[in-house]
Amino acid sequence: MRPQEMTKQELAAFKAEALKQYEDYKALGLSLNMARGKPGAEQLALSAGLLDCLTAADFAETDKNIFNYGGLDGIKEAKELFAPMLGLSPENVIVFGNSSLNIMYDCISRCYTFGAGKGLTPWKDCGKVKWLCPVPGYDRHFAITELFGFEMINVPVDENGPDMDMIERLVAEDESIKGIWCVPMYANPTGITYSDETVRRMAALKPAAKDFRIFWDNAYCIHHLTDTPDKLLNLYDELAKNGSEDMVYMFASTSKVTFPGSGVAVMGASKANLDFVKSTMTIQTIGHDKLNMLRHVRFFGGKFENVTAHMQKHRAVLEPRFKVVVDTLERELGGTGMGSWHSPNGGYFVSFNGMNGTAKRIVQLCKEAGVTLTGAGATFPYGKDPDDKNIRIAPTFPSVEELQKAMDIFVLAVKLASAEVLGA
Amino acid sequence: MRPQEMTKQELAAFKAEALKQYEDYKALGLSLNMARGKPGAEQLALSAGLLDCLTAADFAETDKNIFNYGGLDGIKEAKELFAPMLGLSPENVIVFGNSSLNIMYDCISRCYTFGAGKGLTPWKDCGKVKWLCPVPGYDRHFAITELFGFEMINVPVDENGPDMDMIERLVAEDESIKGIWCVPMYANPTGITYSDETVRRMAALKPAAKDFRIFWDNAYCIHHLTDTPDKLLNLYDELAKNGSEDMVYMFASTSKVTFPGSGVAVMGASKANLDFVKSTMTIQTIGHDKLNMLRHVRFFGGKFENVTAHMQKHRAVLEPRFKVVVDTLERELGGTGMGSWHSPNGGYFVSFNGMNGTAKRIVQLCKEAGVTLTGAGATFPYGKDPDDKNIRIAPTFPSVEELQKAMDIFVLAVKLASAEVLGA
Repeated sequence: MRPQEMTKQELAAFKAEALKQYEDYKALGLSLNMARGKPGAEQLALSAGLLDCLTAADFAETDKNIFNYGGLDGIKEAKELFAPMLGLSPENVIVFGNSSLNIMYDCISRCYTFGAGKGLTPWKDCGKVKWLCPVPGYDRHFAITELFGFEMINVPVDENGPDMDMIERLVAEDESIKGIWCVPMYANPTGITYSDETVRRMAALKPAAKDFRIFWDNAYCIHHLTDTPDKLLNLYDELAKNGSEDMVYMFASTSKVTFPGSGVAVMGASKANLDFVKSTMTIQTIGHDKLNMLRHVRFFGGKFENVTAHMQKHRAVLEPRFKVVVDTLERELGGTGMGSWHSPNGGYFVSFNGMNGTAKRIVQLCKEAGVTLTGAGATFPYGKDPDDKNIRIAPTFPSVEELQKAMDIFVLAVKLASAEVLGA
Repeated sequence: MRPQEMTKQELAAFKAEALKQYEDYKALGLSLNMARGKPGAEQLALSAGLLDCLTAADFAETDKNIFNYGGLDGIKEAKELFAPMLGLSPENVIVFGNSSLNIMYDCISRCYTFGAGKGLTPWKDCGKVKWLCPVPGYDRHFAITELFGFEMINVPVDENGPDMDMIERLVAEDESIKGIWCVPMYANPTGITYSDETVRRMAALKPAAKDFRIFWDNAYCIHHLTDTPDKLLNLYDELAKNGSEDMVYMFASTSKVTFPGSGVAVMGASKANLDFVKSTMTIQTIGHDKLNMLRHVRFFGGKFENVTAHMQKHRAVLEPRFKVVVDTLERELGGTGMGSWHSPNGGYFVSFNGMNGTAKRIVQLCKEAGVTLTGAGATFPYGKDPDDKNIRIAPTFPSVEELQKAMDIFVLAVKLASAEVLGA
């Protein structure tokens, strides 16, 4: 029976039962974490071989330029290896350091101070700048645009991606809208992949702001979890058909392929955009860590197909974890009206929507029982979920056993919070 | 005889003789480079062992946090290892990625967009911003302040450092002066080290701008070349005596200690400054490459004394190169009035001052004979040497044999350019 349809007595009994089980878990004094999209120890071990890809014994026969200054946009072999991640040609790629977030921040900062391209007005001089934020989305994206003082506008997301009607209308009528955050594949946190129509409509946007930029964070482009992976249409190709290829910056990294703190991050864009990026980048740095680029090239034998094969090993580690999350939700909450979720074909998250007004309470209850979740509201700009219902579940870091305990507690917290909001 | 005192005929003969030798070298079709402060192959080989400091065999017993996300300000062991480079406590240090230039750029960008500290006006909103530039100085410093549109003011440098009378006067009277570039030890390019008095006066500055910042780029702090190294007074300690420790940002790196493209860079500052840096840095990145920090910690056995011992190996490679430069200058130009220079006790450069109006011509003559030098003017803001006399000689990259040829050509170019400017 759905709690919404229970009598007062039934609801009280339902709550009492959940509370009893919850208190039993609480007594265990657990310390579990489902907060961040961090690879677990088994995943890290998959890349241990990376550490042997450039040794002192290799020094003599390795090009000495690799060890020295220079190479602003990264080594050729790394561009070739990672360009397919973004669906681009190597000449449309710059290889950076260990953090795609840092590239995105620097892109925003560059646009803010110097403009989005040669001769374009810096965003700092454009008065109020507004930004489109598909929600729920990635908190670190929103943190950047908040820091720069942009006014963030929530755009609802469904199984096909963000609401394109709304986006088309807004960008056409408001010149102060300068960009949009997108995680187009296995989105953080919803797990959905933009439909072909969404990508085509994105490519066909006619923004009033000629310096409108799509920040296309393809963080999970090769992070499949099933035999029937999602497919994402190539936005760059679609934009090129419309002569609009300057409208996008693309980002990806090996943070969740090799080592999160010591991977390689890449940016993809049109020649005009890359030339402008390089015009300030050459003042900012002499170049990023080429040794680490070379390590990655060697680890993958220079072949993108080896990168995707490597991702199958990650899948083997992650699939059971996602199964725990989705199975537990289905078993305990399926058909109850206490929540909805999507079983993703890839990525790092399960997005859970509880009843309105329950998310903060669920997170609090979990915390009190030793389970740390991403803060309620974090998936929305300014940390404000208007319905207080969305919670991002990150199942990758804990062991399967820990995760099961954490999810057992999570569903109990959902039941308790739901009962409370229904008046029990 | 000094060319200035020659008769017209003597000068013509002097020029003809130099030209003959110059043409002989030109005919060799050489390709030599004394342009950038790049370590040579022998120096790179000194750090090959770094590549073995973290292998797959070490994976099991290494803290897994090292491989994962996190650690915004760097690993504890790396802070402890490198804090002595800056003469600071580890808690006053943040360890970054591979580029101190990038840290400096980001510091300027942060001050520009968000201010130099909590509650301080962003420099972008301060109207005209002016910046003090000891000259000759480092071209990449000047490029940053030029990009941000600051008005750069030349400050002459002598053997004790920059002209402190001028600096004291300017910063006291002009609130628009927000900072100064300093390479206080074995300065780029002059090779001089700031005297104790200079450091004390720097620490005692009373700038009109309360957000005035000293950018103290201690790039060559351990890069000694003699048994009698220069000593630099600790600016941070002196500032602390005056309660002015927020006035400085300090920078250093292992770019010229281990691998230029794959080293570790550090920033040092007061707690208040670091807290503010971290407040935007936490939006910009999750953290820098901790594996590379750990490699460095292991390579040096966690001890700063091993870093300084390692620098003695660099010295052994570099000392003969600096000797070629200084000996050749002394032998061919000593007492001729055609140039002056300083034999540095460390660092990466010899700064040559020719007769006024000769620097561009010397660089051009060298280029035509196959010797690439740093562009004339590069050591001044906007690339404009008002006297057209300063040339930065970078002796580290070529072999000793190549360097001797390059210097032979250099002194011939000086003689030719001097004769020309004297009317021959």
